[in-house]
Amino acid sequence: MIIVMNKKASENNIRAVTEKLGKEGFSSHIIRGVEKIVVGAIGDRQTICSMGLELMEGVEKVVPIMKPYKLVSREVKSEDSVININGMEIGGNNFTVIAGPCAVENREQLLLAAEGVKAAGAKVLRGGAFKPRTSPYSFQGLEKKGLEFLAEARDLTGLKIITEVIDSYSLEMALDYVDIIQIGARNMQNFQLLRLAGKSQKPVVLKRGLSATVEEWLMAAEYIMSEGNYQVILCERGIRTFETATRNTLDISSVPLIKRLSHLPIIVDPSHAAGDWHLVPPLAKAALAVGADGIMVEVHPNPMQAMCDGPQSLSIKKFTAMTEELKPLAALLSRQI
Amino acid sequence: MIIVMNKKASENNIRAVTEKLGKEGFSSHIIRGVEKIVVGAIGDRQTICSMGLELMEGVEKVVPIMKPYKLVSREVKSEDSVININGMEIGGNNFTVIAGPCAVENREQLLLAAEGVKAAGAKVLRGGAFKPRTSPYSFQGLEKKGLEFLAEARDLTGLKIITEVIDSYSLEMALDYVDIIQIGARNMQNFQLLRLAGKSQKPVVLKRGLSATVEEWLMAAEYIMSEGNYQVILCERGIRTFETATRNTLDISSVPLIKRLSHLPIIVDPSHAAGDWHLVPPLAKAALAVGADGIMVEVHPNPMQAMCDGPQSLSIKKFTAMTEELKPLAALLSRQI
Amino acid sequence: MIIVMNKKASENNIRAVTEKLGKEGFSSHIIRGVEKIVVGAIGDRQTICSMGLELMEGVEKVVPIMKPYKLVSREVKSEDSVININGMEIGGNNFTVIAGPCAVENREQLLLAAEGVKAAGAKVLRGGAFKPRTSPYSFQGLEKKGLEFLAEARDLTGLKIITEVIDSYSLEMALDYVDIIQIGARNMQNFQLLRLAGKSQKPVVLKRGLSATVEEWLMAAEYIMSEGNYQVILCERGIRTFETATRNTLDISSVPLIKRLSHLPIIVDPSHAAGDWHLVPPLAKAALAVGADGIMVEVHPNPMQAMCDGPQSLSIKKFTAMTEELKPLAALLSRQI
Amino acid sequence: MIIVMNKKASENNIRAVTEKLGKEGFSSHIIRGVEKIVVGAIGDRQTICSMGLELMEGVEKVVPIMKPYKLVSREVKSEDSVININGMEIGGNNFTVIAGPCAVENREQLLLAAEGVKAAGAKVLRGGAFKPRTSPYSFQGLEKKGLEFLAEARDLTGLKIITEVIDSYSLEMALDYVDIIQIGARNMQNFQLLRLAGKSQKPVVLKRGLSATVEEWLMAAEYIMSEGNYQVILCERGIRTFETATRNTLDISSVPLIKRLSHLPIIVDPSHAAGDWHLVPPLAKAALAVGADGIMVEVHPNPMQAMCDGPQSLSIKKFTAMTEELKPLAALLSRQI
Repeated sequence: MIIVMNKKASENNIRAVTEKLGKEGFSSHIIRGVEKIVVGAIGDRQTICSMGLELMEGVEKVVPIMKPYKLVSREVKSEDSVININGMEIGGNNFTVIAGPCAVENREQLLLAAEGVKAAGAKVLRGGAFKPRTSPYSFQGLEKKGLEFLAEARDLTGLKIITEVIDSYSLEMALDYVDIIQIGARNMQNFQLLRLAGKSQKPVVLKRGLSATVEEWLMAAEYIMSEGNYQVILCERGIRTFETATRNTLDISSVPLIKRLSHLPIIVDPSHAAGDWHLVPPLAKAALAVGADGIMVEVHPNPMQAMCDGPQSLSIKKFTAMTEELKPLAALLSRQI
Repeated sequence: MIIVMNKKASENNIRAVTEKLGKEGFSSHIIRGVEKIVVGAIGDRQTICSMGLELMEGVEKVVPIMKPYKLVSREVKSEDSVININGMEIGGNNFTVIAGPCAVENREQLLLAAEGVKAAGAKVLRGGAFKPRTSPYSFQGLEKKGLEFLAEARDLTGLKIITEVIDSYSLEMALDYVDIIQIGARNMQNFQLLRLAGKSQKPVVLKRGLSATVEEWLMAAEYIMSEGNYQVILCERGIRTFETATRNTLDISSVPLIKRLSHLPIIVDPSHAAGDWHLVPPLAKAALAVGADGIMVEVHPNPMQAMCDGPQSLSIKKFTAMTEELKPLAALLSRQI
Repeated sequence: MIIVMNKKASENNIRAVTEKLGKEGFSSHIIRGVEKIVVGAIGDRQTICSMGLELMEGVEKVVPIMKPYKLVSREVKSEDSVININGMEIGGNNFTVIAGPCAVENREQLLLAAEGVKAAGAKVLRGGAFKPRTSPYSFQGLEKKGLEFLAEARDLTGLKIITEVIDSYSLEMALDYVDIIQIGARNMQNFQLLRLAGKSQKPVVLKRGLSATVEEWLMAAEYIMSEGNYQVILCERGIRTFETATRNTLDISSVPLIKRLSHLPIIVDPSHAAGDWHLVPPLAKAALAVGADGIMVEVHPNPMQAMCDGPQSLSIKKFTAMTEELKPLAALLSRQI
Repeated sequence: MIIVMNKKASENNIRAVTEKLGKEGFSSHIIRGVEKIVVGAIGDRQTICSMGLELMEGVEKVVPIMKPYKLVSREVKSEDSVININGMEIGGNNFTVIAGPCAVENREQLLLAAEGVKAAGAKVLRGGAFKPRTSPYSFQGLEKKGLEFLAEARDLTGLKIITEVIDSYSLEMALDYVDIIQIGARNMQNFQLLRLAGKSQKPVVLKRGLSATVEEWLMAAEYIMSEGNYQVILCERGIRTFETATRNTLDISSVPLIKRLSHLPIIVDPSHAAGDWHLVPPLAKAALAVGADGIMVEVHPNPMQAMCDGPQSLSIKKFTAMTEELKPLAALLSRQI
């Protein structure tokens, strides 16, 4: 931690800062520059809220030096984490395709989707049983029934299954069914849910909050890991910006950035990022080329009938065409779909 | 709902759209412009996800005409709502000052804060018993003990009390103690929590999510009201933008905008918006001048010792000086502190 | 400047950094923390692009300590600057009202506007003679003719006049007519224009760029001042954010923040911020309450006929009602309209 | 254009709107919905600022239907534009690599860079002779000398050359030397410069403004084309968002979106987007995979000595390694480097 003193800081001000640091167990080091004086604080622990140093007389600002996360950090674990999901792996040289409808609407829709995406090369079936909806008047999901359909689809196809959980109730229920739990963008800082997911020992796909910084996102993963669950897969799905021509702005740079900061695998959701199926295939290719460990894509047997997110859903035919394009690209990039 | 057809739309495309609309219970109206054709859809209900119209051949875009909220809307209720909190009112000609520490740290701290803010003119004491923290390693709140201290402070001072709830557990516990429950920015779209708050019949302060649009914020209020709880107070606390010189960007325009769109009272939290106590008094004055129904301010008996948010907390002395400045301003603007 | 070394930095890496610093005329100071090592660099000049230190082996990041601006800074000049405009002052205890139409459309429109705003208390008449328009097919301004009408309005009313300049051509032409030149949001980082304005010795209203940080804005003012023109008035007019319910997001916090960082006067443009005349009066009151030195408001004798920005323009009647509300508020706040 | 009337609109209000439309040469069409009434306006021209309709009694909002651009639009020209630059083409099946240093610093630096990037497969040499710098105290470019070095590098290597112009002065000077002129992000809405570039008949690379929407960017291209210069190449270089872990947020989705909206070629600048050379190769691959027509990359013979943007510059060795990775990918995607 570096404390920058302002121009008018007196020797007494500086002494007060070093004494405060001393009381908190830090040693300090004063650097007298030409225009400013800075104090370096040395200690072996993170402090709570920087101890009010910003409020001391003569202090201009406090600059933290340490990153706030540990378990997610590549500094702590330098090799890539590979998450094993009942025999299937995410990370490493895999490029995992997760696909399925926004919402589980009925048995037929889900089974059609499952067979279609399986045939095209997907390894995991997605489908929402609990829907966090902006409007209280919108369809909220089939809940238990939806989970049962997902489990049936798994039995029929061998696909792994994933669903979004939105609270303790849905989490508990989903644990009995799914292979992976998903925490959505709106819940990325629902800390209670993160802790419960951490206690669950199920692999977790953690979507980036729509206004979360990369650091906050890694801190959310840290929450899960701090409870002992190390099976976290990050999912970039676009952030909110001033641009409204797409639903969100896919922050593709976050993929190589995360690869530098963390050992965790990271996948990309081009469907929610774009909000328009036309953009999904090129964004999926970009995700593969940029180094992501997979994609999560919305696929519906009949997008025009979809109860939600139809405009961003690929039909099975279009999804199949897309995976056919991804396969040689993956081979060239030493990735396996 | 207006459906804009693209330039190449054929008569068949247009017919398909009107037939689709017909099947969903809408009548349609075709306007043939010089360059584009638009179809107006007339019906008496909101549709689910616009029925896949965007995916039909020849359709360029679908433009909704209706606002998605009802109960919160000034179109439904034209006069201002005034929320009665056990005899104290928020809204109308009141300018309600809510003040207190970020977190309840211990009995002494809270009682000192309570007495200080009461003397200065506050009507409600705030204090966090459950803290949603970005880091799993940070202080998470005193929980039940914190609520007990709040209740004791109420007994001593006569102030109403408010605390933030972050999940069903904290909500249930808080209901036994507090006069108002607060839903924080990170939980503005925690729809389960909104529903529970809606069922609770306690007044709710609903903070704006840090990347929520005004419309999404009103939809979150609609969630609470759709469960039968009409006692909602909105709280603008700054949004996330590219500017990092302040903690958030206080969207002061949202106050008069909300006053046009909704009948609900709205208060302002200058402390979280600014992240720096120096800016709190001018922003509080701006909130009063712009027409807000109150402010929520962080006050700590000793900001330098605060376990969190010290830099944005006012001391009791500074808070008192601020309310002294607000009082004549309020009088001039026909508001009562 | 503080150089943070990464965990794997070797003694050789550290030595290379200090040697590099030495060659550039800095002395260095090593602080060995528990987990990280930081190097403090001491020298009396700002370096160009931090000398590639970020690229040296073992370097994690470089943290600048000094602010990049000087002349605009309150550290350099602690008392408020007051700008004298041919006998009229902006800054100090003045609250200066600048008002007029978006564009000068014709002689009659401008003279009506001038008389109206003068009677209501405005001190400066605004009116665009050169319009920077998003579309090449939109009205681009009356240019010289517009300047002549402005000058005539000044002669008739005694108001000072201001117009926006958009390039060297319009600047040269405007200098012969106006009392204040305005640099618009889109040109805030048009560095050539800033330099020319700096050489001109005319007072300059410098609007904040719609995605400019406060620091970049102050750097733009520094450009003007570095050419010897110290008569700069900053103008907050809203920034671009994800919120589209208002035209821009008025960053009202920038006013007290600028007051801390700089000695320059700052005014607020509520019209462009809101994009809707209904919000202008409350935002004008907020600007006054937060400590701004004035406002710039769009007023049109007949907003429905306005060639641009009609929806955000006040009629003369509404503008007059607004100033009548501002006057007692200003008096209470020891400001003079 | 669709005019949405509010709930309280009277028949008189509606009549006033249709009469106003009639006077402006529009015919109108009234749709009476269950809750709202909308008026469709039919006419053959774009109107100025919607004629104040928003201000008429009973009008809730005005929804434009037409896109504001024409010449750039794929509706007007459905096949991709290919720009011919003295025999070299951008667009079509080409993936054009533009590379070189941020600033031309001296003859040796530029020639080393030119030879290096040529050998690695670049077709165009970039190098700044006029630098728009945030600080007035930073290096501002070699100007004419820089242009001469660029021309010499072209003579030696056969590369085409491009440089950024920042005003009429630099534009005029650059026209005598370069093959392509570049308009930078900060000048994307410098309309005078756009017009001058439009009159110049030189190919123009138009960078996206850092807070420009896709629509505004296309309107800026429309400015150039409206002067008769159809040789415009768009360049996505990242937008400003709340995320500060990268210099800007590369909006990769803009590439396939632009391909849908416009016939113009579009390239990507991963260097300015990321601000960190580590991220440049993965982002370059993503640009190729997503369908961009090329990249513009910062390359310096010795990034540690670079006068600006060193941290985001690739060395020639790293740049060569990157193009070696891009080549097989391009071949697979039927693109030619």
